[in-house]
Amino acid sequence: MRRSDRIALISKTLSENPNKVISLNYFAKRLGAAKSSISEDLDIIKNAFINAGEGEIVTIPGASGGVRYRTQRSKQDIQKFLQDFCKILQEEKRIIPGGYLYMTDAVFSPVYSRIIGEIFAQLFIDCNPTHVLTVETKGIPIALMTARALNVPMVSARRDSRVTEGPSVSISYVSGSGQKIHNMSLAKRALPENAKVLIVDDFMKGGGTARGMMELAAEFKAEVIGTAMVVTTAVPKEKLVRDFTSLLILERIDTNEGKIYININDKLL
Amino acid sequence: MRRSDRIALISKTLSENPNKVISLNYFAKRLGAAKSSISEDLDIIKNAFINAGEGEIVTIPGASGGVRYRTQRSKQDIQKFLQDFCKILQEEKRIIPGGYLYMTDAVFSPVYSRIIGEIFAQLFIDCNPTHVLTVETKGIPIALMTARALNVPMVSARRDSRVTEGPSVSISYVSGSGQKIHNMSLAKRALPENAKVLIVDDFMKGGGTARGMMELAAEFKAEVIGTAMVVTTAVPKEKLVRDFTSLLILERIDTNEGKIYININDKLL
Repeated sequence: MRRSDRIALISKTLSENPNKVISLNYFAKRLGAAKSSISEDLDIIKNAFINAGEGEIVTIPGASGGVRYRTQRSKQDIQKFLQDFCKILQEEKRIIPGGYLYMTDAVFSPVYSRIIGEIFAQLFIDCNPTHVLTVETKGIPIALMTARALNVPMVSARRDSRVTEGPSVSISYVSGSGQKIHNMSLAKRALPENAKVLIVDDFMKGGGTARGMMELAAEFKAEVIGTAMVVTTAVPKEKLVRDFTSLLILERIDTNEGKIYININDKLL
Repeated sequence: MRRSDRIALISKTLSENPNKVISLNYFAKRLGAAKSSISEDLDIIKNAFINAGEGEIVTIPGASGGVRYRTQRSKQDIQKFLQDFCKILQEEKRIIPGGYLYMTDAVFSPVYSRIIGEIFAQLFIDCNPTHVLTVETKGIPIALMTARALNVPMVSARRDSRVTEGPSVSISYVSGSGQKIHNMSLAKRALPENAKVLIVDDFMKGGGTARGMMELAAEFKAEVIGTAMVVTTAVPKEKLVRDFTSLLILERIDTNEGKIYININDKLL
């Protein structure tokens, strides 16, 4: 096999397996080449990716070593994506009677959810999360894509508990407005003890649901290493959770004007 | 930029955007190369991918043309994956009191859901689906990954309807055992008229839920081009839906022996 063929295949394998350590032996065996040649191939790919802002390839030395590809977007790229995403969310047709913002299609899109998941992964990868936790339903696509970029399992709590999930831990939590009590449950076998959990959801207003997930994580003796939201409302300013990261801030929805005021969180970058 | 650098970057872009038509102009501009050079790069990548069983790259001629990458696994590769997946699902610890099979972690895994999604996409891509439809919750990761491989939107019905989704269409449907009536609703803005829908779910017993999704699709004047399940039970043999594709067949669960009998659907390949 020629070098150019190997470069095509190695680039594909790395892109498809973010944050997974792949041994040089694997590539050498699969591509029928010496480890030294694979090593040279990897240097070429590494430089090509870095120079194009297409993520980083890190060599991990030692017996269990290999190479690992991680998405790594520049501040400018993230800003550009979020600007475009804001524009999409500002379309007038997204205003739902009652003054809500319809964004299900956007967070369910495989294209946007992948990019958002990669941004979340990039923001929290240094905290070494072992699991991504969300609660059904709307957070699942983003949580899945975050888990994919981190190469860890995704775990979703349910609003009800199901017999097909086996024994589960349930908690009650209060919505941010304090007016409603909800339930959330997670199958016992879904999360091992001492997990390091990244909480992911699409939308936060009062923070009740996020707080609920934190309390649920505590029941599993898990450590919450971060809370990542796609959109957080500006009001109420005080949320039930203190530390969270939000990509976008929904300032307000003017139903008379038909306008949605939503901005990039300027503390983010 | 050298050819090897271009090959690394083009391979990455194609792998990350399955089924998306990307113009040669895009690559030429981004990589600062003549279209004829890009064309040669693509021939190299195309042959490397094909020879390694890593999917196909098709050139689409004309003004709106370009190249498109599609996953394309061999029968042997699919069989090998499904054998491994069967082994995972046969682990004794997966038997839940009541004789259910716990498979949430498997279908929520970013690794398995991606491969299953790519297999579903491969099986149905020639029917040109415009949307992938599922119902919350457990089918969402597989549906999302199928939608990603097809490069179409994913749409999920809900068991309840939410004010934040706007006006919706609701239906009632009967479970396969005929003992329970359930509801399912889909936001009106989620699915345009005349969509071509691929129904995806993780598990089917009687087929009531799948039938519900077909009826819901009909309310949206959508055409159902296929129904794809990860696991279907062998009993009851007669389901409420006639045409469906299942990767695996769950023969039975022996709670006394602690054994799960699950096989690859031999009609599949």
